[in-house]
Amino acid sequence: MNDFQDWALSIQSRTESALEKLLPSAQIAPNRLHEAMRYAVLGGGKRVRALLAHATADLCGADAEKADNAAAAVELIHAYSLVHDDMPCMDDDDLRRGKPSCHKKYDDATALLVGDALQSLAFQALSQPKLFSLPERQLEMVNVLAIASGSRGMAGGQAIDLASVGQSLDQAELEHMHIHKTGALIRAAALLGAYCSETSRPEHIKAIDHYAQYIGLAFQVVDDILDAEADTATLGKTAGKDAASNKPTYVTILGLSRAKELARELYENAIRHVASFGNDAKRLVQLADYITQRGF
Amino acid sequence: MNDFQDWALSIQSRTESALEKLLPSAQIAPNRLHEAMRYAVLGGGKRVRALLAHATADLCGADAEKADNAAAAVELIHAYSLVHDDMPCMDDDDLRRGKPSCHKKYDDATALLVGDALQSLAFQALSQPKLFSLPERQLEMVNVLAIASGSRGMAGGQAIDLASVGQSLDQAELEHMHIHKTGALIRAAALLGAYCSETSRPEHIKAIDHYAQYIGLAFQVVDDILDAEADTATLGKTAGKDAASNKPTYVTILGLSRAKELARELYENAIRHVASFGNDAKRLVQLADYITQRGF
Repeated sequence: MNDFQDWALSIQSRTESALEKLLPSAQIAPNRLHEAMRYAVLGGGKRVRALLAHATADLCGADAEKADNAAAAVELIHAYSLVHDDMPCMDDDDLRRGKPSCHKKYDDATALLVGDALQSLAFQALSQPKLFSLPERQLEMVNVLAIASGSRGMAGGQAIDLASVGQSLDQAELEHMHIHKTGALIRAAALLGAYCSETSRPEHIKAIDHYAQYIGLAFQVVDDILDAEADTATLGKTAGKDAASNKPTYVTILGLSRAKELARELYENAIRHVASFGNDAKRLVQLADYITQRGF
Repeated sequence: MNDFQDWALSIQSRTESALEKLLPSAQIAPNRLHEAMRYAVLGGGKRVRALLAHATADLCGADAEKADNAAAAVELIHAYSLVHDDMPCMDDDDLRRGKPSCHKKYDDATALLVGDALQSLAFQALSQPKLFSLPERQLEMVNVLAIASGSRGMAGGQAIDLASVGQSLDQAELEHMHIHKTGALIRAAALLGAYCSETSRPEHIKAIDHYAQYIGLAFQVVDDILDAEADTATLGKTAGKDAASNKPTYVTILGLSRAKELARELYENAIRHVASFGNDAKRLVQLADYITQRGF
């Protein structure tokens, strides 16, 4: 096991613990809702957003303990978006992380409430008293996460995605959609991590933000490549679904070969923005490798 | 027009303005989502939660300007819960405030995203920088709202409500459901208003909290009475629906006459808890009258 895998496992494990602590026990009423929330969040996922938050926290000199709640809050928002996204009125997907999606395992009404309650829990986690010694900074973190999740961030991206079904988008329009749908939350993860340090310098935050924007898009391009290439069993979710549902993807717009080139270009741009940190940006570079190596 | 109606109109009007300012314009992309968010929030409703927040802010000596964002944040959470509650997988209700409900006017996927984005917007509104001079206090307000909205508050109450369909509940179980489903957010409205003043005394906050708990339950009992008695046109939502869908209500459990007695008892308990404020609690007493006078 290499050094990055070692680090990633330790972050995934501490994120799992942080989430486990934040989620109410299934023994607490309403039991079924709490059981379903835990089902939707725990025991799976690569936790890319948590890795990113921890990597930028570390780069800015914050202890991992400081970053735990921020990383968990971003993962809760991500988990809620997957639960709602899988519902019949959205993508109608029966599989998630190789298991029945939340509404298949429980029912639509429960899945709706699971998503709603996970979003509240994210803001509860991030607004806990005395998480950081500067309450102004913590308030700013809540604000960053709220904007990234809302109609001009992730939820807005979902709306653009819905409106794009059956439309012929060009690359710029597709990029606009992904900057919102997945990019906003990935960017928030990187920023919240950096904000965990009270001494982060503005130029560092700016560099991290640029890195996150490129890596967010690269992540999506690679996702489209995987969706086009992989089969359902390997992917853990229904493969080829985007093409089947007539959704534009980087592969349908650019072709597989050009999509792979684009993923590499985005990767290189991401790396370039954190080059000035030298070896301190090691985790960010490794993370960019990890996110994109699957795709090209 | 009496003094209370005058005051209520002015608060309703300033809440409408605050919400109007917080909601992105329908000219901003994603346009349809923003249009639907505005449809779901603006131009209607009694704004009971905003009235309550302003009344407790006033009682504790905070300016109305201070309370605007807190009142709007609570109304945004309330509006999101109505949009999701009306969806086919939940109560499947076609009418809200005398108009087609959000999923009927738009579609299910849009309604899902409208609710999601309104919840984010509530936390965005309440975490705006420098809303209050004490950031710790503001962070606590975010935390109170998040807990009240989540699985151990409003969303949890919805889950208990779902599980109760076709069940025979007793009064205590029904009360448990309502304490979560509507009570938690009404209580949060009263607390957030009080927190708008930086000099609120703990014993005052405690009295306001007791008042809010009683008035929250009274509100629900009166709602059940109205649902049993009124016709659809007067109510602005589908009447008699709870009984028709085999949901337990205070009227089905206690009968109409005992339900009216209970509403009066809860009203009197609420008033008793703020009696020590004397005339300073005028708005809270008037609000209790307003909330319950429809029912008995």
